[in-house]
Amino acid sequence: MSVLVVGTTALDSISTPKGSNPRLLGGSASHAAVAASFFSPVHLVGVVGDDFPTRYLDLFSSRGIHLAGLERVKGGQTFHWHGEYEVNMNNRRTLNTVLGVIEHWSPKLPGAYETAPYVLLANIAPGIQHAVVDQLTRPKFVIADTMDLWLNVALKDLLRLLKRVDCLVLNDGEARQLTQDDNVVSALHRIHRLGPKYVIIKKGEHGSLLSGPDGLFVAPAYPLKKVVDPTGAGDSFVGGLLGYMAAQKSGSPASHLRRGMIHGAVVASFCCEGFGLKRTIQATRADITRRVRELEKLARF
Amino acid sequence: MSVLVVGTTALDSISTPKGSNPRLLGGSASHAAVAASFFSPVHLVGVVGDDFPTRYLDLFSSRGIHLAGLERVKGGQTFHWHGEYEVNMNNRRTLNTVLGVIEHWSPKLPGAYETAPYVLLANIAPGIQHAVVDQLTRPKFVIADTMDLWLNVALKDLLRLLKRVDCLVLNDGEARQLTQDDNVVSALHRIHRLGPKYVIIKKGEHGSLLSGPDGLFVAPAYPLKKVVDPTGAGDSFVGGLLGYMAAQKSGSPASHLRRGMIHGAVVASFCCEGFGLKRTIQATRADITRRVRELEKLARF
Repeated sequence: MSVLVVGTTALDSISTPKGSNPRLLGGSASHAAVAASFFSPVHLVGVVGDDFPTRYLDLFSSRGIHLAGLERVKGGQTFHWHGEYEVNMNNRRTLNTVLGVIEHWSPKLPGAYETAPYVLLANIAPGIQHAVVDQLTRPKFVIADTMDLWLNVALKDLLRLLKRVDCLVLNDGEARQLTQDDNVVSALHRIHRLGPKYVIIKKGEHGSLLSGPDGLFVAPAYPLKKVVDPTGAGDSFVGGLLGYMAAQKSGSPASHLRRGMIHGAVVASFCCEGFGLKRTIQATRADITRRVRELEKLARF
Repeated sequence: MSVLVVGTTALDSISTPKGSNPRLLGGSASHAAVAASFFSPVHLVGVVGDDFPTRYLDLFSSRGIHLAGLERVKGGQTFHWHGEYEVNMNNRRTLNTVLGVIEHWSPKLPGAYETAPYVLLANIAPGIQHAVVDQLTRPKFVIADTMDLWLNVALKDLLRLLKRVDCLVLNDGEARQLTQDDNVVSALHRIHRLGPKYVIIKKGEHGSLLSGPDGLFVAPAYPLKKVVDPTGAGDSFVGGLLGYMAAQKSGSPASHLRRGMIHGAVVASFCCEGFGLKRTIQATRADITRRVRELEKLARF
């Protein structure tokens, strides 16, 4: 089945001590859609200006990512993030953010999208995530991703959203911030009380944690000797996760969460090995299967 | 088979916003020996003053921990650590350390101990760890634990020790410090070049990583909703690990490292649930098996 992905479609300019990578394809929906496209057809819902390069549209299309829901605003500027890495590549700071066309955007789903079974509300303002849920008629499984910014500036919208999704994905720092609980395991329990039946906490190189009615699942990350650029890794994780779930022919969606997280972790590992989507788009489905098998071996006891 | 454990036997006084816990049984060898004693007979090598409470000696004995190698210095003062927790229980700081009898101690193994098959050099000055290795005649498997202090004040001794042990255990911060490499996975490879065939990196709540000739193993931690006092958790991990390995009747020692780490992680989880050894000594072998089974379930995919 197909996956509907809504989120940001952006241009990322990433400066490093060794040079600059201007106007890379970036944004939560771009990373998530490309990640999901390894497994399932994807319907992308986003907005760009007319400065958005045609080659990025071609890239989406070449991967079976449908663009009927990608709004193009004439004379508008695409959301642009400019960040810089320090010498050791561990610290990243934002130099500039131009919201552009995303600032006043409210998504309108193409008619056929309203019946989308698998929906990923990738990281974007909770108001926009609500607008998409409002238009859905019978989703099977809805995952929402978020970030600390929305906890700070749109907490009320976010809390309301938690009652409308099957699964919330957030990182450990955000889980602590949302619950005011320093212990990630007890934070999971508090987040369930806010609405979602399933909660996934991303811990970067330390893997991820799933909590649901069947208890916890501790997922490893794929161990990388070198991380080039982690931008988009979380989006790749959640995109790979839902793309994998949508591709399964039997069983309930939730029964595929564990292996979905493993597949998401593997797509995220490719994402980290290059700037933007450069390495991700070089990976093949066979490369993913190989790393999933490696993870199976290195987590066995 | 039995396990020889050398390290500190200490008194820990731990202050918290809710009260104080004076003169608890602490030290790397105490935690490690108690952890190992769930699985195997233990021979403890350490030193205490005559202020060391008899009830702690009785506790060791009651758990099958042999004390022929525990030196008692007349008129001497036991190593004493005094630490304080902040309100959120996450930050701990040292208020005072009295080295006491440990300062000028050099261990002399009782004759029968020289043929010890499984040896744990728990966290203590590398010079003391060397003195023990000097007296061993045919160990099957030697694990050394360490801490950042020794990287700062005894690096040369530590580097020399790495060529004399089968396995080094250290935490992620120490691995980064030792190798000057921010990436834990590539740090593992650098540590192998320093000597040990097996390297284990402890990551606290994020589990642990093993690297050896057969590649990596990613071990989960047992997820705890509440951590009361993590003091000694790393020592419990490594004690449980080697105690478990020594209890296996067939196969090479290294073939039991993975499940050993899981058992060590479980003993460490009990350690974190109480001050000092209070919770650890309440746990039964059946409690450990139960948590190991839980870990098997929650790591399966």
